[in-house]
Amino acid sequence: MFETERTSRTIAFYFDFMSPYAYLGSVGIERLAATHGYEVDWRPMLLGVSVIKVMGLKGVADTPLKRDYVRRDLVRCARYLDIPFARATDEPMTSLPAARVFVWLNEQDNSVARAFARAVFRAQWAEATDMSSPEAIASLAGSLGIDANETVAAMADERVKRRLREYVEASISLGVFGAPTFLIGSEMFWGVDRLPMIERWLETGGW
Amino acid sequence: MFETERTSRTIAFYFDFMSPYAYLGSVGIERLAATHGYEVDWRPMLLGVSVIKVMGLKGVADTPLKRDYVRRDLVRCARYLDIPFARATDEPMTSLPAARVFVWLNEQDNSVARAFARAVFRAQWAEATDMSSPEAIASLAGSLGIDANETVAAMADERVKRRLREYVEASISLGVFGAPTFLIGSEMFWGVDRLPMIERWLETGGW
Repeated sequence: MFETERTSRTIAFYFDFMSPYAYLGSVGIERLAATHGYEVDWRPMLLGVSVIKVMGLKGVADTPLKRDYVRRDLVRCARYLDIPFARATDEPMTSLPAARVFVWLNEQDNSVARAFARAVFRAQWAEATDMSSPEAIASLAGSLGIDANETVAAMADERVKRRLREYVEASISLGVFGAPTFLIGSEMFWGVDRLPMIERWLETGGW
Repeated sequence: MFETERTSRTIAFYFDFMSPYAYLGSVGIERLAATHGYEVDWRPMLLGVSVIKVMGLKGVADTPLKRDYVRRDLVRCARYLDIPFARATDEPMTSLPAARVFVWLNEQDNSVARAFARAVFRAQWAEATDMSSPEAIASLAGSLGIDANETVAAMADERVKRRLREYVEASISLGVFGAPTFLIGSEMFWGVDRLPMIERWLETGGW
């Protein structure tokens, strides 16, 4: 195996656990990557920073018309992509505890971090379990064999919080503003609806 | 021909001439409709009303990060869909004159109105000609065999202006907020990237 070759076949995947479209995108991009021999590099971002602070917009839950459309569109997209979907509530999820644990795990073993991220997305958006609280996150981590006490400590660790801010700042510097966002080389794709275009890009090398 | 049958095979297409994605959507939906035996019912809306007044957001041109992404994404989408694309300027187009003429023509002959709308979209987004001014619109109408003096009068006609406002209010009442938006029965699809999903919907009758 050539390390440099493997590295060039990487799709960077920017996600926020609070986004159900990012959940659909996570399943979709892992399918595409598996089919085409790519690795997925999971990178947390925070919509609260990009959408509200940097772009000066509102969240979908606070936006008339779009709020109603999205509620219906999500269910339809999930069925279209054949991905399990069930939401607990219309209240926005708080993704900071989960994002911090992801960052902490990713420094130790990125395959464990990815397994954790998949489990959080599945619990939140396929099993209708609110994963906003540190308690829910610690319990989920425990079920994956990750020490629950260490998980609780990581969520409160200033170094971990700072590391997450660095991830978020890096995403903004690259121009990432929404979730899911996919980066193939320097080519950026925003939205789960870009998956067919990404597939064509992987097949053809771009246009 | 059975009028009722033809009517039920109609896709409502909501557009604003200022939206390049609506231009791409207009070409895409007419292709899909032709393949699947549907009619396209062109209905003007105004993003300045839905996005800014009703949703309380900003236009893309005023939104950091997204502005840069969209500039690149548009060219990529146009190539992906094999649709000619060339923009005159990054300044937003003013679509009121063209929308008013569309409304005026649509009351007389909707096939003439559709031909006019296609020509405006093509000039603005494939031939890089700014179609913001009444003069540009009157000249284009003249080239299609529509009386240029009557066109100028229609753009200033209070009754036509009121009729456009009624179209816009009707679109908001239905929950239409973006362009392009497609309505199949009561099923709403927003965005040019929903064309593959619409195609599946037409083939299967929905899910």
